[in-house]
Amino acid sequence: MSDRNTLKIAAFAAVTFSVLGGSVLVSADDGEAELLARAQAMFKPLPDIAETADRPVTPARVELGRALFFETRVSSDGKQSCAQCHQPMFYGTDALAESVGNQGKRIPRNVPTVFNTALQFAQHYGGNRVDVEEQAVKALPSGLAYGNVDLAEAEQRLRAIPGYRPMFEKAFPGEAEPVTADNWGLAIGAYERTLLTPAPFDDYLEGDSSAIGAKAKRGLEKFMSYGCSGCHGGVVLGGQMFQKFGITQNYWELTGSTEKALFKGRDKGRFHDTKDEADAFMFKVQQLRNVAVTPPYFHDGSVATLPEAVRIMAKLQLGRDLGADDVSDIVAFLETLTGEVPENFVNAPVLPIAPFLN
Amino acid sequence: MSDRNTLKIAAFAAVTFSVLGGSVLVSADDGEAELLARAQAMFKPLPDIAETADRPVTPARVELGRALFFETRVSSDGKQSCAQCHQPMFYGTDALAESVGNQGKRIPRNVPTVFNTALQFAQHYGGNRVDVEEQAVKALPSGLAYGNVDLAEAEQRLRAIPGYRPMFEKAFPGEAEPVTADNWGLAIGAYERTLLTPAPFDDYLEGDSSAIGAKAKRGLEKFMSYGCSGCHGGVVLGGQMFQKFGITQNYWELTGSTEKALFKGRDKGRFHDTKDEADAFMFKVQQLRNVAVTPPYFHDGSVATLPEAVRIMAKLQLGRDLGADDVSDIVAFLETLTGEVPENFVNAPVLPIAPFLN
Repeated sequence: MSDRNTLKIAAFAAVTFSVLGGSVLVSADDGEAELLARAQAMFKPLPDIAETADRPVTPARVELGRALFFETRVSSDGKQSCAQCHQPMFYGTDALAESVGNQGKRIPRNVPTVFNTALQFAQHYGGNRVDVEEQAVKALPSGLAYGNVDLAEAEQRLRAIPGYRPMFEKAFPGEAEPVTADNWGLAIGAYERTLLTPAPFDDYLEGDSSAIGAKAKRGLEKFMSYGCSGCHGGVVLGGQMFQKFGITQNYWELTGSTEKALFKGRDKGRFHDTKDEADAFMFKVQQLRNVAVTPPYFHDGSVATLPEAVRIMAKLQLGRDLGADDVSDIVAFLETLTGEVPENFVNAPVLPIAPFLN
Repeated sequence: MSDRNTLKIAAFAAVTFSVLGGSVLVSADDGEAELLARAQAMFKPLPDIAETADRPVTPARVELGRALFFETRVSSDGKQSCAQCHQPMFYGTDALAESVGNQGKRIPRNVPTVFNTALQFAQHYGGNRVDVEEQAVKALPSGLAYGNVDLAEAEQRLRAIPGYRPMFEKAFPGEAEPVTADNWGLAIGAYERTLLTPAPFDDYLEGDSSAIGAKAKRGLEKFMSYGCSGCHGGVVLGGQMFQKFGITQNYWELTGSTEKALFKGRDKGRFHDTKDEADAFMFKVQQLRNVAVTPPYFHDGSVATLPEAVRIMAKLQLGRDLGADDVSDIVAFLETLTGEVPENFVNAPVLPIAPFLN
């Protein structure tokens, strides 16, 4: 953040200097200033941390949560962890169209990146998890994820690794039994709330007009003018509402999505969580940070490349046929949303040993 | 290595100083010196790198090999990689008794650490891989590991990730088609040859008598006197020969090992590779570096703790009933074999993206 603040001050100083020098702002500069102002009204730069009043991010919780994020021994087959699907090598995804879970079971949805996800209004494609903490807890008894029979079994596995007790005690002081599934969720959530990836677009939003190139600016302008930002706005460019996927036609006609056994047909999104026909084909609007480095695309990873995904979205959601230049400009803009992988994520922790027999 | 060399020089300087100062070596020092001399005859400190004339370790090969080590997309289920079984969090193991491979298949053997393994005379419990390079290549078509039909399929998957081509070209200059399974093996092997973990015992072997404590020295003395070092000698304290597991009685009478479907009964070690009855129950003698931090123990992970494993080994191989002090001293010695996890291993690489559809 301090780097971005420095840039902000530098940009301000440059403007001041040109005023003092008596120069007149030319229309190109006006256009630049107007674009920036429009963008600032529509989007927000990343905060330093995704903390809320009831989800405090303390160093002890982050340290514990980081360990638990990489911990495999709590899963029933001894191989699943948060990091198993949200991998350091792939910008917090598994780089697959559809994921593979406990006992090799196929999960018919594409893993979204864990980066910046805590800033979304809900978790999962159907929004059936209110926040990252709930998501982490409910993965434990899920047959596709950790595969435990219930939370008690997960807690038993966690307690069988003695090295975790002092870490839980430090993260949740004063609790009679801190090694619980709920605290598993709170700790992992605290860690995930640190996994934010500031990108060139944040520098731009904070006033450094040089942070993104001319082509990306053209893409930004089109992204707003064509209406993409109507849903993909805010701090993570999405993640703030549900929206029907396939407004102008059925999504699978363009994505090529197949029927899925788990859904007994097409994936109808939030409908599978609520059983309410009004939710049929409603999906959480995905965030777009790091979208350029997390192929393949859509809830089932049915589309391989970003240009194709942009073209399909414009058609399905806005009824617009984008030309090749439009697609290429918008992709250039989306590339400015690629941040650095957090150091605290690339470096896997060494975990407490335990005499673990599967 | 430079740290250890500095210590070596410091130790030499200390001796010189005491001679110049006119002091006489007391008998405790004689005992210390004798123990060190015995140890130096039996063991060797780690080299900086496990390079051989025909297995060159170049920076380009190591960089490529590190990426490939963490690469999951070459496996048929999109989830297997070297790092999947040799994990950064668990000292290059998966911390399970028996591993889980492609499609959730159970592998009835315990994953040995990848650290220092290139210094062994062969790979796998049955020694059916001559070196780490061959091990890496032959994992590709293995149904339990990467699960490809054949090497051609693995190569096809590798070539589908365009970012790898320039890395292969750099690592294997002048080759018409460098993206091959053989070069996959050579690159991963080069990387693994850098994964060495110098430990306090190396400092001791290089002359720093203070590098290990009095209890560990008693354990070292017993380890040699009782005959453990007869098999567990050399640079990685093992890994130089085959030996029958269970000389005085059947191993499963003490380890509690169960019958395994894959082996149609008890695991008979090298026999399953050679089908020669002379090889029944012959296993490669395991290296002991990092043994204290890589539970559980033995080829099937049937024993949970190191003290129990030491007690069982003495009984099975040497017919000796160790007392509690013996076990505790030997464990203290084995703990001096714990090194640091290499930085190049804890930090996962960010891998080239590709439109990968599974």
